[in-house]
Amino acid sequence: MEPFTQKEIHLVNRPEGMPSKEDFEFREKELSSLQENEVLLKTLYLSVDPYMRGRMKDVKSYIAPFQLNEAITGGVLAEVIESRSASFKQGDIVTANLNWAEYNVANEHSVRKVDPSVAPITTTLGILGLTGLTAYFGLLDIGQPQPGETVVVSGAAGAVGSVVGQIAKIKGTKVVGIAGSDEKIDYLLNELGFDAAVNYKKDSFKEDLEKALPNGVDVYFDNVGGDVSDAVIEQLNNQARISLCGSISSYNTEGEDIGPRMQWKFIKTSSMMKGFTLGDYAQDFPTGAVQLAKWLAEGKLKYEETIVDGFENTPEAFFGLFKGTNIGKQLVKVAEPEFAKL
Amino acid sequence: MEPFTQKEIHLVNRPEGMPSKEDFEFREKELSSLQENEVLLKTLYLSVDPYMRGRMKDVKSYIAPFQLNEAITGGVLAEVIESRSASFKQGDIVTANLNWAEYNVANEHSVRKVDPSVAPITTTLGILGLTGLTAYFGLLDIGQPQPGETVVVSGAAGAVGSVVGQIAKIKGTKVVGIAGSDEKIDYLLNELGFDAAVNYKKDSFKEDLEKALPNGVDVYFDNVGGDVSDAVIEQLNNQARISLCGSISSYNTEGEDIGPRMQWKFIKTSSMMKGFTLGDYAQDFPTGAVQLAKWLAEGKLKYEETIVDGFENTPEAFFGLFKGTNIGKQLVKVAEPEFAKL
Repeated sequence: MEPFTQKEIHLVNRPEGMPSKEDFEFREKELSSLQENEVLLKTLYLSVDPYMRGRMKDVKSYIAPFQLNEAITGGVLAEVIESRSASFKQGDIVTANLNWAEYNVANEHSVRKVDPSVAPITTTLGILGLTGLTAYFGLLDIGQPQPGETVVVSGAAGAVGSVVGQIAKIKGTKVVGIAGSDEKIDYLLNELGFDAAVNYKKDSFKEDLEKALPNGVDVYFDNVGGDVSDAVIEQLNNQARISLCGSISSYNTEGEDIGPRMQWKFIKTSSMMKGFTLGDYAQDFPTGAVQLAKWLAEGKLKYEETIVDGFENTPEAFFGLFKGTNIGKQLVKVAEPEFAKL
Repeated sequence: MEPFTQKEIHLVNRPEGMPSKEDFEFREKELSSLQENEVLLKTLYLSVDPYMRGRMKDVKSYIAPFQLNEAITGGVLAEVIESRSASFKQGDIVTANLNWAEYNVANEHSVRKVDPSVAPITTTLGILGLTGLTAYFGLLDIGQPQPGETVVVSGAAGAVGSVVGQIAKIKGTKVVGIAGSDEKIDYLLNELGFDAAVNYKKDSFKEDLEKALPNGVDVYFDNVGGDVSDAVIEQLNNQARISLCGSISSYNTEGEDIGPRMQWKFIKTSSMMKGFTLGDYAQDFPTGAVQLAKWLAEGKLKYEETIVDGFENTPEAFFGLFKGTNIGKQLVKVAEPEFAKL
């Protein structure tokens, strides 16, 4: 391969509040020749995820902050264009945590092959990837849903939430979803088979939620935090479990996120809440992945993708996560494969 | 026994904010003759406990509210004066949940005999009773302290907190107590052997706490809630556990108790918090009681009692819990026994 120039997306400002176009810059970068055991990868799809907002802040967290004036990294689905690795050949489809770039050069140990015969390749970034595993472990390990119990999930029409609700149904629970548009409510009720769904943007949200919960809440899978979660916590049953996956309502908040203290409610009901990040379950990934693939093959899990076309629209796709424009997994389609037939 | 008249303490107003004398009234009540299987009990000691404040509110909780114009009930240590039960004889010492009264008539099934040869009888209301069991199960089951970890306990010089810290020491952890006076700090450090102790009433509390926690917090046993807990939560380590026992800072608060939302902190650290009430562990009481008695006999547990003399001072003793005037278990001495030699 000859060295060539391509574009990647750099973080150039640390966003304050809602991120904007000015926080990102498309910059040209030359990729040099492949070294031994490296592959040249053409980006087909990028995953944009709410957790990435946290990495744009310069604070200590479970994952290091993005560096200014360097490429943002995230989940990428790519095609091998050229290979100096015995493990990969031209036309192979792979996934990895890579630069938001049109092309990446990567070591063979940092990428994982994707079998396009199992399911559409984009599921690797969604229901069969980190998204699905997040739903699987967060719900089953922390929530421990039992048949007949009521499971509430916020961000229910999102990538993780939609999988959580479906797994909860598989486990024989009554599932109540919380989402932010009539279209999403319709999707939850009529596509995914949720037992009830409540629109948190309506003035009647608290009353609607209470009506949807005649038997209270046994398990709450929380993607959003904030006022929505305050309302769910008021309805906790005895020995309820809250799985804290995300707090998207606060990601763009400057200053302190203030709300009712919840300790007394937890004491009165002997309830539990636990935060997690997917890394906590790294050793169990294979178990979760096999189960998710089985459910998908059996038709027990459905998924939706919201795909934005064009690398240049990546920042907009990311902003959309906070505006709630996506149903299911939000992806960016960057290019068609050159060699693979999918 | 001839019917006779004695005094009991009624709740006559539901307190708003800090309870006051006007919320209680000493009223005369006639006790009628004993029925089959009943005993006449003379109150020797009363237990006053923070959780009773919750029962003074007319709200649904894990335990029913006290009724207005009826006697308050709580932990009582009493002497059998007269018995129509084959299980009890005059001079026996018993404990039960009874009226705050000079005398009670009780069915034999509702009282439990106390063996005065095991330990001073007042330990039945404290370290060997519900107080000790609360510390035991809340720390060990929820906190799961491991050798070398850092355990923080708030309300550390109180009845429950002082036992929690000592059990945490037995388990090989580093123990940091939070209390509200120099006298209490001294007690924790020099009597109970805590590794560090911090006075939350000092302006430098947050800095002092941070200094006392060079390795962060692995387990937090929370008796107080509020600002103190906010400060501890900032220092949580990865996979930290919070055992929620009480929230005394909020018991006299009218209106909403507002503070920083904590979900994001729990996600970042994969931390857990769980509330409990002692009833959750009813099946395991014998195990806990045996272990506490063993540690006490071995000299591994110490305890302190703050004893107010005189039935008429019961309300003041109760108020003292919220002013932090007690070290260790707060009791009221009501009378000397008539028959038992202790």
